[in-house]
Amino acid sequence: MIHVERFKDNPLITPADVKPLNEGFEVIGTFNAAVAQLPNETIMVLRVAERPLNSDPSKLLIPIYDVESQTTKVITKDNDATRFNTSDSRTIGPQQGGYDFDYLTSISYLRIARSQDGVHFTVDDQAFVYPHNDYETYGIEDARCTKIDGKYYLNFSAVSSRGICVELISTTDFTSYHEEAIIFNPDNKDVVLFPEKIHGRYYALNRPTVKSTGHNDVWISSSPDLHSFGDHHWLFSGSKDGWDNGRVGAGLPPIKTDAGWLEIYHAADKSSKYCMGAMLLDLDDPTKIIYRSKNPILSPDADYEQKGFFGEVVFGCGYTLKDDQLTMYYGVSDTSMAACRFSISELTDKLAKHEL
Amino acid sequence: MIHVERFKDNPLITPADVKPLNEGFEVIGTFNAAVAQLPNETIMVLRVAERPLNSDPSKLLIPIYDVESQTTKVITKDNDATRFNTSDSRTIGPQQGGYDFDYLTSISYLRIARSQDGVHFTVDDQAFVYPHNDYETYGIEDARCTKIDGKYYLNFSAVSSRGICVELISTTDFTSYHEEAIIFNPDNKDVVLFPEKIHGRYYALNRPTVKSTGHNDVWISSSPDLHSFGDHHWLFSGSKDGWDNGRVGAGLPPIKTDAGWLEIYHAADKSSKYCMGAMLLDLDDPTKIIYRSKNPILSPDADYEQKGFFGEVVFGCGYTLKDDQLTMYYGVSDTSMAACRFSISELTDKLAKHEL
Repeated sequence: MIHVERFKDNPLITPADVKPLNEGFEVIGTFNAAVAQLPNETIMVLRVAERPLNSDPSKLLIPIYDVESQTTKVITKDNDATRFNTSDSRTIGPQQGGYDFDYLTSISYLRIARSQDGVHFTVDDQAFVYPHNDYETYGIEDARCTKIDGKYYLNFSAVSSRGICVELISTTDFTSYHEEAIIFNPDNKDVVLFPEKIHGRYYALNRPTVKSTGHNDVWISSSPDLHSFGDHHWLFSGSKDGWDNGRVGAGLPPIKTDAGWLEIYHAADKSSKYCMGAMLLDLDDPTKIIYRSKNPILSPDADYEQKGFFGEVVFGCGYTLKDDQLTMYYGVSDTSMAACRFSISELTDKLAKHEL
Repeated sequence: MIHVERFKDNPLITPADVKPLNEGFEVIGTFNAAVAQLPNETIMVLRVAERPLNSDPSKLLIPIYDVESQTTKVITKDNDATRFNTSDSRTIGPQQGGYDFDYLTSISYLRIARSQDGVHFTVDDQAFVYPHNDYETYGIEDARCTKIDGKYYLNFSAVSSRGICVELISTTDFTSYHEEAIIFNPDNKDVVLFPEKIHGRYYALNRPTVKSTGHNDVWISSSPDLHSFGDHHWLFSGSKDGWDNGRVGAGLPPIKTDAGWLEIYHAADKSSKYCMGAMLLDLDDPTKIIYRSKNPILSPDADYEQKGFFGEVVFGCGYTLKDDQLTMYYGVSDTSMAACRFSISELTDKLAKHEL
């Protein structure tokens, strides 16, 4: 165990703090934010999820961005239990079939929250990145931010009827952005970029979702240009039993420490309870794991971590670091943002000694 | 329709022509070969599939390459219908579960066949590439060969409990080879490399298998170094009805013609009948489709194309070209190799006129 101090102001941002951009929609999530520490400002790039208001339970309302008309439309389907499975609040799935979902129940986009003290945030009135191309028609989700050579790179999941792929954009000012590329084709998610080149190549952790056989494991891939990734290596899988037996995925962008690259990742068990774990990767060759924690460093124990749109979830995507103090910002229950702080040296020391 | 002439010697190579490399195994497939035209020799890089001989129908025999002992082992499981689905002759699947298979019934590897006349082939006594790493424990399959800057690049599917990924090797002599990289992580297959750079980047068609939502569609990706691919673009999907409503995938490596990049691809309908279709891509920007055939150019009509280990399949992976005559070598029924020839100008003319 390490000592983790949750912010007393948690949750820091909730859906009640944010007005929907779409008329006739409600904000149901402000969560899973990428984080950047600017000289005078802490930035969260929130995932905001909006859902069409629905007073008729016999109907399913499905939000989809329409590229041609450049608007978010709502498709109506009969809530037919012989056709659709609505047991997961996030998706409208098939009753039978080897895929996960036909539609999402909400549409997500990226919106910035700004803070002077890292605790009290003000959310921008407008989106930073809203779906606008054929790869994003179901929404964009779960950004991560890595500063490389003075520029902030943000990658996020783009969801559409083409599957879930990973897009990269860059910004210097968090006002405008440049579209870089689709860096992983479907199905892939939970990509984090390393902040510097290692032996001349950029690195990224990523989490392909497999259909043929096997598990949803974390891989590590490298790139000469941040647009093209390859030389893929399998990195790790969840355990057969315990807190990480459902799925794993990278969480925070890797942090360079004397003990190795510190990666704080998420894992879910088979009942979809999400915790955060930690691992150290070799500084010189990050395809090598030095040690991976046997137990979570953060579990959904607080009330706001247990209850919400999709409960029992802590899901960290970003951090700030001041001296030895790491502040992890994390989504809770697919609903709100929270934060906690802990000593990075305590964490890396205990990982290096195999005490976690 | 175009005029297609099947070779009168078809099938050119059958499992009876090839001795198994593993004791206690039988060769059940010699198919889906990559092809290279050397100055004095036509090379097929066959997929050879070997299956453990099994006289006990109450048992399932599963061949797996064991990396530690560097041997192909056979695992025995009870043929338990409550646990395993064996309705697909190629796989041992789950009775329930959102993935395709637990194991394969055979192990595939790459073995070279050589010919002076392109019709009569002699198969090497040994493997060219046999599974030997953790990504290949269930076998390696369906190579494609593209000559780039004087070197032959071969990519193939590597199957293991980590999913299906795509590896690249290179050779100059088809005797030894150099391991390049894993160029696509799971699940992906049916990768074909373009034979030259376009605006400074290498290109590849590829076919991610999606689990979240959507279909198994063909994407196009580019690379600065042949190891790392990115800037992924969705290219095309099968139709809702007809011969290509099941799945699509690239077949032959793209051929540069005056009319555009000619891609001869495969498509299956929902009953898994595999045909070959053709399309033209823009020479200057291969992410743009000029025209895709509405009908197949080759269907499994001959007896050897209809009957076999997995019937009703024509599956072309390689070709030779002499003047206007294109010879397509293709696997039939996941069992044997066949070939046919046709006029490439007739094909591209009719595609350009939207007559196919």
